[in-house]
Amino acid sequence: MNDVARLAGVSIKTVSRVVNDEPSVHPDTADRVLAAIERLGFRRNLGARNLRRGSGTGTLGLIVEDVGNPFYSELHRAVERIAIRHGRRVLTGSSEEIPDRERELALEFCARRVDGLLVVPAGTRHGYLLPEMRAGTPVVFVDRPPGDIAADTVLVDNAGGTAAAVAHLVAHGHRRIAFVADSPEIFTAAERLRGFREGCATAGVPCAERLVVMRTPTRESVAEAAHRVLTCPDPATAVVAGNNRVTVHLVRALAGAGRRPALVGFDDFELADLLDPPVSVVAHDVSALGEAAAELLLARVRGDQSPPRKVVLPVRIEARGSGEVAA
Amino acid sequence: MNDVARLAGVSIKTVSRVVNDEPSVHPDTADRVLAAIERLGFRRNLGARNLRRGSGTGTLGLIVEDVGNPFYSELHRAVERIAIRHGRRVLTGSSEEIPDRERELALEFCARRVDGLLVVPAGTRHGYLLPEMRAGTPVVFVDRPPGDIAADTVLVDNAGGTAAAVAHLVAHGHRRIAFVADSPEIFTAAERLRGFREGCATAGVPCAERLVVMRTPTRESVAEAAHRVLTCPDPATAVVAGNNRVTVHLVRALAGAGRRPALVGFDDFELADLLDPPVSVVAHDVSALGEAAAELLLARVRGDQSPPRKVVLPVRIEARGSGEVAA
Repeated sequence: MNDVARLAGVSIKTVSRVVNDEPSVHPDTADRVLAAIERLGFRRNLGARNLRRGSGTGTLGLIVEDVGNPFYSELHRAVERIAIRHGRRVLTGSSEEIPDRERELALEFCARRVDGLLVVPAGTRHGYLLPEMRAGTPVVFVDRPPGDIAADTVLVDNAGGTAAAVAHLVAHGHRRIAFVADSPEIFTAAERLRGFREGCATAGVPCAERLVVMRTPTRESVAEAAHRVLTCPDPATAVVAGNNRVTVHLVRALAGAGRRPALVGFDDFELADLLDPPVSVVAHDVSALGEAAAELLLARVRGDQSPPRKVVLPVRIEARGSGEVAA
Repeated sequence: MNDVARLAGVSIKTVSRVVNDEPSVHPDTADRVLAAIERLGFRRNLGARNLRRGSGTGTLGLIVEDVGNPFYSELHRAVERIAIRHGRRVLTGSSEEIPDRERELALEFCARRVDGLLVVPAGTRHGYLLPEMRAGTPVVFVDRPPGDIAADTVLVDNAGGTAAAVAHLVAHGHRRIAFVADSPEIFTAAERLRGFREGCATAGVPCAERLVVMRTPTRESVAEAAHRVLTCPDPATAVVAGNNRVTVHLVRALAGAGRRPALVGFDDFELADLLDPPVSVVAHDVSALGEAAAELLLARVRGDQSPPRKVVLPVRIEARGSGEVAA
């Protein structure tokens, strides 16, 4: 600042005024200060440039439950890949499944003027985003739909996936199938439960409430759920696990207890094929989910004004061994 | 803009000048325009606020090799945890191990005025960061040191870890130990090779060059390396894997080939304990690495001007089975 003041022949206070864009400096003086700053090799300031131009900030916001969860880091990578292709960076945040945290992050990202926002919603109320969307920040919901507004949404076929898992297990002779999943307040968990029930109804096997356990998956809660469904009267001979976290905790709990019910997990995960037995899963392409959502968002950023779209990506059974254990 | 001009009783050009912080508007006029903007409910713009105040942007930049790699997503999560505690968000980018990409990302993050920058460097030349650092953007290098500048660095004990892995395998009777790792141009890989050689020298076992294979780990390249070190004359009876990617590819290749050399991998990874045999690793605390780096960076942001620090975090052998196979 001293160097700039000396070179421009003004006081430090004047430099400070110019740098802070205070409106009390004569234009000629400001020009001299700016020229001095330039000559002294001050650094690029994209924020200042973006504000002046009124252009986008070249940033996409991404809100997930937990950036450390492999499912979300794969999603993040896919979003980043598309963002880079369009000259943009990704600002991320973990909502930790707390609606207020999601809202706080989303509004903060909007206040930072992200060009668009991708949200894996934690909450079910999204009216708070309407002013931002009307003001021109497009929002795409990923993996779960918004609660009470119409907006672009990219999902996977949750209900179809668990229905297929049930049909797969029934084909191997199982009739007492448990469903261990995340809290039913989470859209994907509720949808997968719906598919589980539909699958049971279609196959003509009972959907026993004692074999359905849904709560936030921790190592302990899943171990307890496994113990419960495998030791109750008329215990389960097969389990459908509601997501990658549940499956991993379940595999660990079963290995510890020396049990071998048939198992199909929702979401594929690394090393599933190398476990003993290899874990059969309802697989979907997380990269495709992230890419589809990012592409849709960038189309909106470029001005696509068509009505909100809902995209549902297919899933498939990846049979590896654990789901093909006979009843 | 029209509404603002009408409410403030000024021309659109004047509103534009105020919004663009041009220095040619009378302060009273600017105040009226700003009040009108406020009354009309324009949205928060943190970028504008930060520019006016000359304060930080409340953002930390984080550059890793690949946000989708579980090692880096765990690091990211730890950095985010500390950042949030200090009211900041994290802007991330993947360098993909390309020095130019690292430089481009780092300079762009600086141009976005991140409050500080965490870099897992891809390159070995970092003079380009000196102007940024002098201008007040602190930089902390994580997991690998900078190439040619003095800067804060947080590492794990790479050489100590592989030396300990060799000692562990020698204690189980092995004397022909292979080292399969990433390219030696990568600091951690080179350091781990150094530790591998030191470990061999200390134990008095030969460090045969035919048993050292270092290159970018892909599923195919690691399978080929495993085949080579296990089928050459005097083949290896044990393998030290240089990082989590190498270990996972190696486990898959060994399972496919039905081979069972002793194995110790560098970096712990999810499900290592559930594989058959469970994989012994040189474990270190990735969360602690990210937290230590973020805490150091935030101390610099708050004004800590002490000389650059180098922090080396300890590692430990996690014996689970694969490393305890007798020769």
